[in-house]
Amino acid sequence: MTQTLDITDRTRLRRSHERGHFDRETINAILDAQPMCSVGYVIDHKPYVTPTLQWREGNHVYWHGSSASRALRNSRDAEVCLTVSILDGFVMARSGMHHSVNSRSVMLFGRAFKVEDPAEKHAKLARFVNGLFPGRYEGLREEHAQDLKATTLLGMEIAEGSAKIRTGPPKDEEADYELPIWAGVIPVTTTVGTPEPDPRNLPGVEMPEHIRKFRL
Amino acid sequence: MTQTLDITDRTRLRRSHERGHFDRETINAILDAQPMCSVGYVIDHKPYVTPTLQWREGNHVYWHGSSASRALRNSRDAEVCLTVSILDGFVMARSGMHHSVNSRSVMLFGRAFKVEDPAEKHAKLARFVNGLFPGRYEGLREEHAQDLKATTLLGMEIAEGSAKIRTGPPKDEEADYELPIWAGVIPVTTTVGTPEPDPRNLPGVEMPEHIRKFRL
Repeated sequence: MTQTLDITDRTRLRRSHERGHFDRETINAILDAQPMCSVGYVIDHKPYVTPTLQWREGNHVYWHGSSASRALRNSRDAEVCLTVSILDGFVMARSGMHHSVNSRSVMLFGRAFKVEDPAEKHAKLARFVNGLFPGRYEGLREEHAQDLKATTLLGMEIAEGSAKIRTGPPKDEEADYELPIWAGVIPVTTTVGTPEPDPRNLPGVEMPEHIRKFRL
Repeated sequence: MTQTLDITDRTRLRRSHERGHFDRETINAILDAQPMCSVGYVIDHKPYVTPTLQWREGNHVYWHGSSASRALRNSRDAEVCLTVSILDGFVMARSGMHHSVNSRSVMLFGRAFKVEDPAEKHAKLARFVNGLFPGRYEGLREEHAQDLKATTLLGMEIAEGSAKIRTGPPKDEEADYELPIWAGVIPVTTTVGTPEPDPRNLPGVEMPEHIRKFRL
């Protein structure tokens, strides 16, 4: 298994080449850090983008939703572009031109396939839930057969794609460093708040560790 | 000016209709709350999604980047789909099926146009910077003519699109409320950290209010 993706015409960076990464370790770390993603697909020659959650298993990435979903019906066996992007900060430069954001993003290209086998669907959905909340799936109400039917599960191979990362202070033009302008970075992070129990929880049901310890 | 967008075949919600919103007030509030967006476009019948920053002026939304950018060259005068999505929490239900996320998202469809006039480009870029950081643009090194040339600015009308919002506790099947399973919501927020001054700031340059008071 190669540890670096081949660069293709779709994934070659046109500018800021130093920000591009093609190794699986970097790509996987970004996919694993943020489940929110955007899946792009085409219907009647027109672009659609659907926000959804993704999870990774080895060299594949998966997403799911209602079997009635237009997004899922139209991206099955079709070309998709899946992106994850994490905003890490606003980069405040000395000119408008060099303002930027610190961020980590992944862009993947490929053909989506549908996972049909009920046992495989079950295993992958369990992996999705347990990947975020270790041990939760086993404590839930057991799946109805209808739940699995009502859920469409798509996947794609992580084969063509790239990561893009920007970190650090602004990169101004040399002459601009002599200007008395405040420059720097405003960091942005995602914060997990205090869990809010459902008012309908039964008395005595305690908050499990996978909820208390959840971090993104 | 109508305050509600017409529902089209592209924007009609197939499920969870109560989560769909077509009024400009709701759509604008989400666009204004989060500059990060994803722009979907099509090249050679294949989907591409590019993460970038958007800003709104009245009934238009704008985004920009290097004039060398493939994303911008290919979405000019072309159909695009622009989405903003904000994750507000993980919704932990009593079955895997009813797990969800609380979120606010906007999906816009339309044709992107290029803003060509240098004075208009300048005004819109100033509005973008000042919209996030009031008064910053005027304190920056003045734009070089080359800066404007190197920047492509695209816009689209907010005419076809929708917002989708989910809030509140899980919605489980009635029978499942009798199970001793912890359910609830894990809130997620975006946090702005302490600004990090560029080590190359000149001595005596103080952090301006638009940096100190910045919130997302």
